[in-house]
Amino acid sequence: MSLNYFFKPRAIAVVGASSNRQKIGRQIFDNIIKGGYEGKIYPINLTSRSIANRLAYSSLSELPRMEFKSMLVVIAIPAPLVIDEIKKCAKLGIKNIIIISAGFRESGAAGKRLEKKNISLAAKYQLNILGPNCLGMINTFEGINTTFASAKKQIGNIAFLSQSGAIGSAALDWLKNKNINFGYFVSLGNKAVMTENDILEQISRDSRIDLIVAYLEEIQSGQELMTIISRIAKRKPVAILKSGQSDLGRKIALSHTGSLAGSQEVIKTGLQRAGAIWLDNLEDLFNLLGLFQKNLWQNKKNQDIYVVSNAGGPAVLTVDEISRQQLNLGGNFDLLGDADAKRYQSTLKKLLINPRVNNVLVILTPQNVTQPLETAQVLVSLNKKYPHKLIMASFLGGPAVTDAKKLLEKNNVPVFDYPEEAILSFKKIIDYKNNYQSIIPYKPLTKKSRTKINSGDYLKSLAWLKKYGIKTVRTTKYSAKTKYQYPVVLKAVGPNFLHKSEKGAVITNLSNAKELKLAAKKLNGKYKKLFVQSTNYLVVQPQIEQKQEIIVGFKRDKSFGPILMLGLGGIYTEIFKEVVLITSDLNYQRAQQMIKSLKIYPLLSGARNQASYDVRGLAQILLKLAKLANEHPEVKELDINPVFLQAKQSLAADVRIII
Amino acid sequence: MSLNYFFKPRAIAVVGASSNRQKIGRQIFDNIIKGGYEGKIYPINLTSRSIANRLAYSSLSELPRMEFKSMLVVIAIPAPLVIDEIKKCAKLGIKNIIIISAGFRESGAAGKRLEKKNISLAAKYQLNILGPNCLGMINTFEGINTTFASAKKQIGNIAFLSQSGAIGSAALDWLKNKNINFGYFVSLGNKAVMTENDILEQISRDSRIDLIVAYLEEIQSGQELMTIISRIAKRKPVAILKSGQSDLGRKIALSHTGSLAGSQEVIKTGLQRAGAIWLDNLEDLFNLLGLFQKNLWQNKKNQDIYVVSNAGGPAVLTVDEISRQQLNLGGNFDLLGDADAKRYQSTLKKLLINPRVNNVLVILTPQNVTQPLETAQVLVSLNKKYPHKLIMASFLGGPAVTDAKKLLEKNNVPVFDYPEEAILSFKKIIDYKNNYQSIIPYKPLTKKSRTKINSGDYLKSLAWLKKYGIKTVRTTKYSAKTKYQYPVVLKAVGPNFLHKSEKGAVITNLSNAKELKLAAKKLNGKYKKLFVQSTNYLVVQPQIEQKQEIIVGFKRDKSFGPILMLGLGGIYTEIFKEVVLITSDLNYQRAQQMIKSLKIYPLLSGARNQASYDVRGLAQILLKLAKLANEHPEVKELDINPVFLQAKQSLAADVRIII
Repeated sequence: MSLNYFFKPRAIAVVGASSNRQKIGRQIFDNIIKGGYEGKIYPINLTSRSIANRLAYSSLSELPRMEFKSMLVVIAIPAPLVIDEIKKCAKLGIKNIIIISAGFRESGAAGKRLEKKNISLAAKYQLNILGPNCLGMINTFEGINTTFASAKKQIGNIAFLSQSGAIGSAALDWLKNKNINFGYFVSLGNKAVMTENDILEQISRDSRIDLIVAYLEEIQSGQELMTIISRIAKRKPVAILKSGQSDLGRKIALSHTGSLAGSQEVIKTGLQRAGAIWLDNLEDLFNLLGLFQKNLWQNKKNQDIYVVSNAGGPAVLTVDEISRQQLNLGGNFDLLGDADAKRYQSTLKKLLINPRVNNVLVILTPQNVTQPLETAQVLVSLNKKYPHKLIMASFLGGPAVTDAKKLLEKNNVPVFDYPEEAILSFKKIIDYKNNYQSIIPYKPLTKKSRTKINSGDYLKSLAWLKKYGIKTVRTTKYSAKTKYQYPVVLKAVGPNFLHKSEKGAVITNLSNAKELKLAAKKLNGKYKKLFVQSTNYLVVQPQIEQKQEIIVGFKRDKSFGPILMLGLGGIYTEIFKEVVLITSDLNYQRAQQMIKSLKIYPLLSGARNQASYDVRGLAQILLKLAKLANEHPEVKELDINPVFLQAKQSLAADVRIII
Repeated sequence: MSLNYFFKPRAIAVVGASSNRQKIGRQIFDNIIKGGYEGKIYPINLTSRSIANRLAYSSLSELPRMEFKSMLVVIAIPAPLVIDEIKKCAKLGIKNIIIISAGFRESGAAGKRLEKKNISLAAKYQLNILGPNCLGMINTFEGINTTFASAKKQIGNIAFLSQSGAIGSAALDWLKNKNINFGYFVSLGNKAVMTENDILEQISRDSRIDLIVAYLEEIQSGQELMTIISRIAKRKPVAILKSGQSDLGRKIALSHTGSLAGSQEVIKTGLQRAGAIWLDNLEDLFNLLGLFQKNLWQNKKNQDIYVVSNAGGPAVLTVDEISRQQLNLGGNFDLLGDADAKRYQSTLKKLLINPRVNNVLVILTPQNVTQPLETAQVLVSLNKKYPHKLIMASFLGGPAVTDAKKLLEKNNVPVFDYPEEAILSFKKIIDYKNNYQSIIPYKPLTKKSRTKINSGDYLKSLAWLKKYGIKTVRTTKYSAKTKYQYPVVLKAVGPNFLHKSEKGAVITNLSNAKELKLAAKKLNGKYKKLFVQSTNYLVVQPQIEQKQEIIVGFKRDKSFGPILMLGLGGIYTEIFKEVVLITSDLNYQRAQQMIKSLKIYPLLSGARNQASYDVRGLAQILLKLAKLANEHPEVKELDINPVFLQAKQSLAADVRIII
């Protein structure tokens, strides 16, 4: 799927252009003309012969045949009529289409059927369709604005993708008074054919783009998205705001451990694996856009922040935030309440001339002799003088600082309503800066095993672990005749004993044959009915002391593939949510990082005079589990709960496989 | 200390009023006149005989003697000259003074000495001095503005206290374009004499004030502040932004458990005990002010939030935040992208007429047919029609929504830059609303015991616990001759064994006399030098199984008094920061609440088929410990680590008292 002509067409036809200025098709047509697009522009209208003083055509088929291959068609007519235009495109050899029209999937069953038809046509004729139900696309480099929103013409270094037209139009409007510009703007709409994946792939190749920001509501193909983002993020930042977090809220409320990997957490895990910057809310998103007025993230020098202010209180609050974000304060310069623009200037000059100083936050509140506008001018000129240093500003107050803030915004100085916000945005960039070089491109591992796992039987499941090299606690079916080495543990296992401990189906510390027999009698009596089923039975394991209980497992996500989980085992797992997630393309180093990111890591590694545990063995278990997950797509879920982590070895003590 | 005349003087004299318009004293003088103050205003200047067409006086002593008692004097002259004016005030019987002048404590040793002199004079003559180094005071009810900042004259229902002049002036400026007004504004400055406590006490009595907001940098008398706020908060909300949180960061980094009660955490504990609303940053503060345009917190009806928007994306993000804040969504009304003002109106009308609907958040982004200004007008008129319902707005975008936002702000509709912020502010109010009626006035308990605790000796410390009714594990000095009931634990105790476990100074599970003897030999050998000191010795305790380890203790804060701590014992304490703090004015109900607020509470109370523990006994230990803390001010710190919590009893197994 080449999108070259989609973003850089030689001609644009607007189906639904109208002589009525109120019609969306006409607004789009006008925006394309206003944008300064240099290719040919064809209005298509059944009845009018002239629109906005241009010759109008009654059908796409009337247009010059040689244009079709390199043409973009924008469709803005009622939904039921769209399908015929797409058929026409397919017939004429037109590949690139934007469907602005609403009335599809978002509007009920009939719309859903219409949308499905589009998809099958698109697949058959390999059409690049954006939308339907979208705002359109803007490419400022080519002077193209196919949206019905008024937008700035200035070219810029940011690409903005939005699955919400509303957020898209808010962003376009928000830019207007600022010297921040989009290179590309793409409203994804219903994503019936083209998704964020196709757009990202194409846009990221443009070296004029320094930052890609996307707002997404659903991600159909997480593994593909990870593949694409991980390749892009090695070169330039990609920031994602994903809505729908309340889903997670609902899922976390469930008590089952499997629910620890709720869907929003899975998405976050996947996108962070790919190296994306994770945005928490709209404020985060807009603040990051603001910060990107200067493309400074590649600056690998000193990352300390220097605070210059005429306001002690706000400066203290800023330092609090710097400390909370684990950033470094280079220095705090209190110019006192009677600082005029000159005092700001002389301090800032001295600071900025120092090669160690790269990041300055300037705070101002309007006091008696404060000169907000003149101080803003000082920042603007220093900002020009030091194009490779980051000067951020936070001017607090109301009308006294309005003009100063406007001046800063017009002149590429990132301005924040509150100084703490500047720190939060800066932190996101610093984290990316420190990590992007070590991003390993994601590749979904699809090597399938010849033998399938076809049973969740307990002993067979343990055997599968052994087959993958995971050591297990010696486990045998209970038999009254066998001679065991005591002490032992007796467990009831099988599909009806998924929560053994809570069911009282585990009896530990049985120190002789008599005790074991008694325990077996007790369980056999208690669960008589369940043992009728042959998959439920009793097993015996040796009693193991001196251990730390750990839980590992994976859950297969439809979109993001297998997601591995590692956490503290035992009673505290869910209490402290001590669980980390990771994608299954694991190597030893990342398995170790995963273990180190646990809060309990100091306890595992022997800190504070604690015993140390077989952390390497645990990393190996994770690797082997990842291999199993990648080779057995038939397994939906697998938990090893607990792993007994000992000083010299790690043993799987229990397992649960769901197919 | 009566502050009646301080806030409502019959006359105001400005020492330092000048014919030079640039002088601060003159600006203050002008502001008082501009404010419309109806009492007498006297400019005091050594040389000028007329200032701003008013008769000037060369000294306070020239003023009519009968005015002195009810007069407020504002001093704005160089710091070294201030002391003479205060002496003059004292001599003349003037009680109420504001020192605007800087150059005191904040400026070094000489300034510090000057400030001390002020304090001793103030004490001697019982003067009410605000400042020095402050912006002054505003009382809009009386038309008084003694600051040198330009400020609105409109009366309002908010009192604002600030220890930072900069934040104060930013707030005054921020108000200007909004229909939010301060009743009182007090810049606290150096708090040499009067503190937030005096001001709060006075201002809170004014029934025209609905909300008190304070920015504080240091709190000298936490117990007094708790006493005052807890009385106020039963009637109206008090919100505090306290800077200096990075202190905590530093302290938390220390590994000692005692540090878990870092100073900022103590302050938060104290203020939340008193019922104050805790603000996290400047954005929080300004958003709360914005929300208080309507005084609706007493509204005890349905607290669900209804979201109305023309923007699916932002609405989803808002619902995410509502869920994250554990608030209730009443309903989400998507008016679609082509909603005009009428569509907003008809939906909102239907909603607001419903008596169950009390809180509505209206989201708008500028799209094709959106009417931001007209929609704002709809909100303004509905806001007037429903004075007892909360209508909040978040209009996203740039210039397209600027005028609409201004209109809303001018007409008492709280506007937020991002919808998630509205939810965060609303949450603070709801939490207050749900709790204020159960606030119990704080009273520091000062009943001192006749006998002082004068030793940190281990066995004596255990005896003190017993004296207060706290059961302890049977503990005796080790002697080779004694016959013990095995198994036992051997510990080295004393001032050199504060971190016993990490020192390897605890040997557990000794099952006979031989093992005990061997263990004693080992410790005696290892710590030979330490045992020379008679306060270090070996003790024996029975080995206790089937227990949950808990840690309790207290630490005496100079400002806030004894702060009790309760947490998970053992190796996880510091890993998961599972610690809660509380002030020592405990009753059984609050002790129980404290226990219930632990994340591990479900484990203690027998959830998920766990054993249940003696939670009541633990509450009793907390009560007894609080009593000890209140009666023994000589004890700086006390830890019981661990408490062995068993099914039927709770035992102190170790103790450490620091005097």
